[in-house]
This record gives sequence, C-alpha cells and structure tokens, in this order.
Amino acid sequence: MTRGSDEYGKPRPKSRLEAFSDGVFAIAITLLALEIGVPEGSGDDLAQAILDQWPSYLAYLVSFATIGAVWLKHSAITDLMPQTDGVFLRINLALLLFVVFLPFPTRLVAEYIDGSESAERTAVVFLTLNILLISVLLGALWQYARRRKLIDERIDEDEAQYLTAQITPSLGVYAAAVVLGLVVPKLTVVLLLVAAILLAFPARTMLRWLPGRGRR
Amino acid sequence: MTRGSDEYGKPRPKSRLEAFSDGVFAIAITLLALEIGVPEGSGDDLAQAILDQWPSYLAYLVSFATIGAVWLKHSAITDLMPQTDGVFLRINLALLLFVVFLPFPTRLVAEYIDGSESAERTAVVFLTLNILLISVLLGALWQYARRRKLIDERIDEDEAQYLTAQITPSLGVYAAAVVLGLVVPKLTVVLLLVAAILLAFPARTMLRWLPGRGRR
Amino acid sequence: MTRGSDEYGKPRPKSRLEAFSDGVFAIAITLLALEIGVPEGSGDDLAQAILDQWPSYLAYLVSFATIGAVWLKHSAITDLMPQTDGVFLRINLALLLFVVFLPFPTRLVAEYIDGSESAERTAVVFLTLNILLISVLLGALWQYARRRKLIDERIDEDEAQYLTAQITPSLGVYAAAVVLGLVVPKLTVVLLLVAAILLAFPARTMLRWLPGRGRR
Amino acid sequence: MTRGSDEYGKPRPKSRLEAFSDGVFAIAITLLALEIGVPEGSGDDLAQAILDQWPSYLAYLVSFATIGAVWLKHSAITDLMPQTDGVFLRINLALLLFVVFLPFPTRLVAEYIDGSESAERTAVVFLTLNILLISVLLGALWQYARRRKLIDERIDEDEAQYLTAQITPSLGVYAAAVVLGLVVPKLTVVLLLVAAILLAFPARTMLRWLPGRGRR
Repeated sequence: MTRGSDEYGKPRPKSRLEAFSDGVFAIAITLLALEIGVPEGSGDDLAQAILDQWPSYLAYLVSFATIGAVWLKHSAITDLMPQTDGVFLRINLALLLFVVFLPFPTRLVAEYIDGSESAERTAVVFLTLNILLISVLLGALWQYARRRKLIDERIDEDEAQYLTAQITPSLGVYAAAVVLGLVVPKLTVVLLLVAAILLAFPARTMLRWLPGRGRR
Repeated sequence: MTRGSDEYGKPRPKSRLEAFSDGVFAIAITLLALEIGVPEGSGDDLAQAILDQWPSYLAYLVSFATIGAVWLKHSAITDLMPQTDGVFLRINLALLLFVVFLPFPTRLVAEYIDGSESAERTAVVFLTLNILLISVLLGALWQYARRRKLIDERIDEDEAQYLTAQITPSLGVYAAAVVLGLVVPKLTVVLLLVAAILLAFPARTMLRWLPGRGRR
Repeated sequence: MTRGSDEYGKPRPKSRLEAFSDGVFAIAITLLALEIGVPEGSGDDLAQAILDQWPSYLAYLVSFATIGAVWLKHSAITDLMPQTDGVFLRINLALLLFVVFLPFPTRLVAEYIDGSESAERTAVVFLTLNILLISVLLGALWQYARRRKLIDERIDEDEAQYLTAQITPSLGVYAAAVVLGLVVPKLTVVLLLVAAILLAFPARTMLRWLPGRGRR
Repeated sequence: MTRGSDEYGKPRPKSRLEAFSDGVFAIAITLLALEIGVPEGSGDDLAQAILDQWPSYLAYLVSFATIGAVWLKHSAITDLMPQTDGVFLRINLALLLFVVFLPFPTRLVAEYIDGSESAERTAVVFLTLNILLISVLLGALWQYARRRKLIDERIDEDEAQYLTAQITPSLGVYAAAVVLGLVVPKLTVVLLLVAAILLAFPARTMLRWLPGRGRR
C-alpha cells in the first residue's frame, strides 16, 4: 500500500464531516435572512413598505428551500455511510464552496428582480447557475459514494436507486432553468422554488402526510 | 413496502437532525445581538446614548428568550426520540424557516417601537405572527412525534402529557397576542417576554430553585 | 414524584447542551472579528491605516481571550458530567445570553477607547460588567453541578476543588475591574486581557509547556 | 500527581474540541462570502459589474481553499487521536484566533488588490502573514500531538510521517510567499491559491481520482 493511498482511500470516521457540513449548511441558511433589510423612512406606512420587499422574501424562500432540500439529500447520503474517505471529503468541500456562495446571487436577485430587464435576467441566470453547480456536486458525491462502496452494504439496491432517482433529475431541471432564466426570469425564480420543494417532497410520498396513516 | 415509504416512514438516525438544528438555533440567537448598533456621534454622553437604545435591548431579549424556550422544548422532544423519520425532518425544516426569519421582525420592532403609532403596531404584530408560526410548528413536531410513535416507548404517558401541557397553551397565548398587538403594542412586547419565560420555566417547577432541595 | 420534577430534576442526555453551546461560543467568537472594518480612503498608506486600528485589535483580542477561557472552563465542567438536567440547561441559557451580547460592548470599546475620556470610561465599564456577569453565571453553573451531584462520582474531591479554585477568583478580579474601569479605563482593558489569559493558563501549569516533559 | 497536572496532562474527551472547532471553521469559511457586496448603480450592465468584482471572488477563493485545507489537516489529526489534553486545547484556541481573523485581511485584499501598488502590497503581505501563522500553529498542534503520544498507538510510523510530510513544507512555502508578496503581490495571491489546493490534494494521490480504480 503506497502512502498516497493512505489518506484518500482509507476509511475514516465521518463525525467531523457531518459536524462541519451541518455547521456550514446552518450558517448559509441563516445568513440568507440576514440580507433582508429594514425598510427605511417608512414610519407612516410600514405595512406597505414590508409588502414592497416581496423580492427579498421570494429570494430568501428560494434559497432556503434549495439549501434545505440539499441538506436533506446530503444527510440521506451520509446516513447510509458507515464511514467516509479522503476523496469524499474533498468533493464535499467543493459542494460547500458553492453552498456558501449562494447568499451572494440571492442578494442580487432580491435587488434586481424588479429592476431593468437585462439586470433581472443576469441576476436570475447567475443564481440558477449557482444552484446547478450545487446540484452537480451533490450528484457527484452520491455517485462517488456508490462506486467506492462507501455506503452500507446492507442497503438494498432498490433503496439506492430510489435516492439516485431523486438526485439525478434535478440536474436536468436546473440546466433547463438556466436557459429559461434568459427568457422569463421571474417565472424561473418561481420554478426554482417549485423544484426545491419537489426535491424535498417527492410526489409519491405526499400521500403519507394524510392523517391516520401512521408507520407500523 | 413501496419505495416512496422508504425515505419518509423509515426510522433514521437523529444525529444530523440535532446537529443541524442546534447550528441554526445557535446562529439565529447570536445574530439577534449583531443588530444592536453602536450609537454614533455620542462621544460626550455615551452612557445616555446606550440607555436610549432600550428598544434594541428589549427586542433582543424577547427574541433571545423565545428562541431559547423553543430550543428547550425542541431538545426535550428529540431527547425522547431514539430516532427520527423523513416527515419529522421536513416539519423541522419548516420550523427552522421561521426561526431563521425571526431576526428580521426583531429589527423592525427595535427600529419602530418608539416611532409612529401605526408603524409600532405593524412591527409588533409582524413579530408576534412570526412567533405564533414558530409555536404552531413546534406543536406540529410534537404531535407528529407522538402519533407516529417516534418517542421512546418507555416514556410513560404522564411525562408525554406534561410536555403537551407545556407546548399547547402557548398557541393560545400567541394567537391572543397578535390581536393585542393591534391595540397595545408596547404591552404586547412585554407579554411576549413573559410568555417566553413562562414557557422556559413552568410555574410549578419554580419551587425547585429554592436552595437545599437537591435531587436525591 | 410530581410531574414538575420530571423536567427539571431528571437526568437528561447532554449532547444537545454541548452542541448548542459550542455553536453559540463558536459564532460569538467569530463575530468579534467581523466588526473589524476595512479602513477607507487609505490607498496611499494602508499599512499606517491598519496600525491605526489598534483599538479594534485590542478589543477583539480581549473578547476572544475571554470567550476562549470561558469555553475552556465550560467544557471542563461538562466533560465531568455524565448527564445534565433542566435547571443546568436554563442557567446555561442565561450564560449564553451574555456571551452572545459580548460583541456589542466590544464594538463600543473599539470605537471609543481613544475618544473622549467620559465615553472611554463608559465603554470599558460596560464591557467589564458584561464579562463580570458571564463570570458569575459560569460560577453558578459549576456550583449547581457540584451541589446537585451532576458531576461524575469518580471525580475526586481534589480535582473538583481545583476547578473551583480556578473559577471563583475571577469573580473578584472582574468586580475589582469594574471599579478600576472608572479610573483608568485603558489599563483596565489590558487587565481584562491578562485576566482571561490567566484564567486559560493557570500559573502553576505553565511549567508543563517546557519541551521534553511528556505525559506518562 | 500535582493538581496542576490534572487539567493539562490528563486525557480528556475530544467531542467538544471537535464540535467547537468545526463550528468556528464553518463560520469563518461562510463569513468570507458575506463580504462580497452587491454592485450598486449597475442595473444596465449587471453582468459586467459582476465580472468587475473579480478581486472579491479571487480573495474569497484563496481564503476558502486555505480554511478548507486547514480543516482537512485538522480533522486528519483529531481523527487519529482517541483523546485530547489541556495543552492541545489551548494551542487549538490560538489556531482558531487566526482562522477567525482571516476574513479581515481577505477583505483588505479584495478591496486593494487592484488599487495603488503600495496598498496592494500591504494587503497581500498582511493576508500571507495571517496564513503563515495559521500554518505554524497547525504544525505546532501536530508536533504536540505526536510528542505527547496523543495519537492512537496503532497508527504506524509511516502514516504519521506522511501527515508530517504534508504539513511541514507549507511553512516554507508561506514564509517565502511573505517575501514574494512584497515584490509581486498579484502573483502571490495566485500562489496562495495553488498552495492551498496542493495542501488539500497532495500530487501523488491525484492519480486515484481516475475512474475505475475503486477501493478494494
């Protein structure tokens, strides 16, 4: 065994991977709301001023739903892994690079979504590209974990394919959304919100929310 | 067993749920204090300038006490749960959405509580609505955990009902506070503080603070 | 056993107490540095402009050392505890209330330490009072843990007294520093730094830093 | 055994060390992106305005890569340690002091890298010195852990030397970069990025990224 293989291929405990990732996800999701500014000089009609800030809330909601959905899949992946390895840690850092970056295009969209047509388009495409990159890297994490057999062997193939079926299509959706953002930016933002919600709540399982159908 | 049921109903480890939630609570509670600005141009009478910022401290205290009390109940719930499931994770994300949002209305109250009557009312009602939503979602978490039998079976019914008795009434209090905020906003802010403190310290157990009555 | 006694006196797992506290300490300590602003309009002599900001660095260092020392003692306490209880959690929340507040007086000191004499004094006394309160609540945590026998019974009395001997004197030092801050504010800031360092590195144990004296 | 030796030399659980450090790393890495401001008054050509901010992205990337690489080594060290001790905790706090400080010189570089020659040089040297200090303290952590035999005894000597071989050379690189920053500041920033990437991905192990060469 070469020394080089030691750090990368060797199984390692996953506790710090999870703690660090959870910290980054938690902070990125919290900083989004920090961007929402107090409307100024609006003492007389504060309610209206708060409503006028709808682009901020929409941008916040889109990014919160996206990070929330990515966190759900990320923890679904690591829950299946008894251990991690050096390569997984590095792909994970690349994923976090773009998760941490997300508040910046979110602010751009909040600022320019109701501005000039060209600025609106730029901001929305920028945000969508960022989300696409996050989605690509999440898919890379999952593919790597499967190929290197990092996931628990007792997980049956059906279950692994189910997770693949959830993670893979979002790549196509986000790639299409980049193009769509050039044409109808406002609609694209709404689509990003719907996509994040569908990623978080696959349609088939919505039924289980009905009351009285408990786990047995 | 359908694939759909796998992700939602299946028991899952709770470590990442707790780490992520603790991160979000910790950041939201810390960002509150970040909003308190340094009074400017007040070199001569800084002590007075600091005192004049009482609305900031009051708003900070209300939101800190609220998030602190919600964290206490949230950890009381997950401490009883050997594991979590997919639906619980999603209700939890919805709860965190509004926990993370809380610093925004907190800033509004700090800014407008001593301003025009109409702005003051708007800010206070907005904050109270946010806290009501947090309270509703905390109740939903607890109800879900009980119905799906996520909580440890060795917990006796008395203990579970005791937690229900603590979480449920706050819904009524906060719903009433929304209406009250329209009439007497300043008093409502004080009520929010008292409510959070009572949620954190149920009256019956205050007695145990008396010295010399240790656990045996 | 009354229901009320359940939540407070009952032993509870300490994992969420530690995770939440670590999150809050980590964020408060990080936000301190966020306050250090980029000097503006100083393209020509940036090095000088950076040096001119010494009050910011000093204030940052004092608060970092204080939070660092408190975190050391806090984790020394919880490391001795197999479990926690409801009262401990609440004293802990009170401690965190003032830890989270610390960046605010830190900013005040950074802003006013080289300003008018009266403003300087106010800012320093305010910071010292905040640190005194943190110190009082840390002492309360430790006393509570000892009296309620939350600490591991295998810890011998010597070891517990050693921790008491470290935590208790800082109360006296900080109480004296509040008075001193009224007279010689700049010196008091230096004293706060020294006190935090001594709290972190008790004199007797400095010797062990010498090389070649490994653990056996 | 003296009392003084108790706190420092005594083995202690490492859970809070890891949780606190992960929190600080996560926040420091996230705050970096917070500094990237929304370009103002650029509704007409937002795409150009976003591109014009390249110094911010470069500075962000350098600091993200540096903190990411340091986190990788830091977790590689603590993964080898069954327990920690009091001295390790204190060296770790010193390391975190400079990790938390990093966003400040990062902002300076983002602001001044395209400014006057003298300001550019000051900002880059300042950033490089900060990274050098982080690197020195990371090396001190590792050396301390090895000498005090904090690392797991089952780790063979080869593996420990491999980690030494990764951590040590970066000291020389960063010391050289400080000098280089005085002469060619822009190039030095690029060098810092390359150094962080090489620290994260040692050359020898790049080969393992090739597909089809899974762990067996």
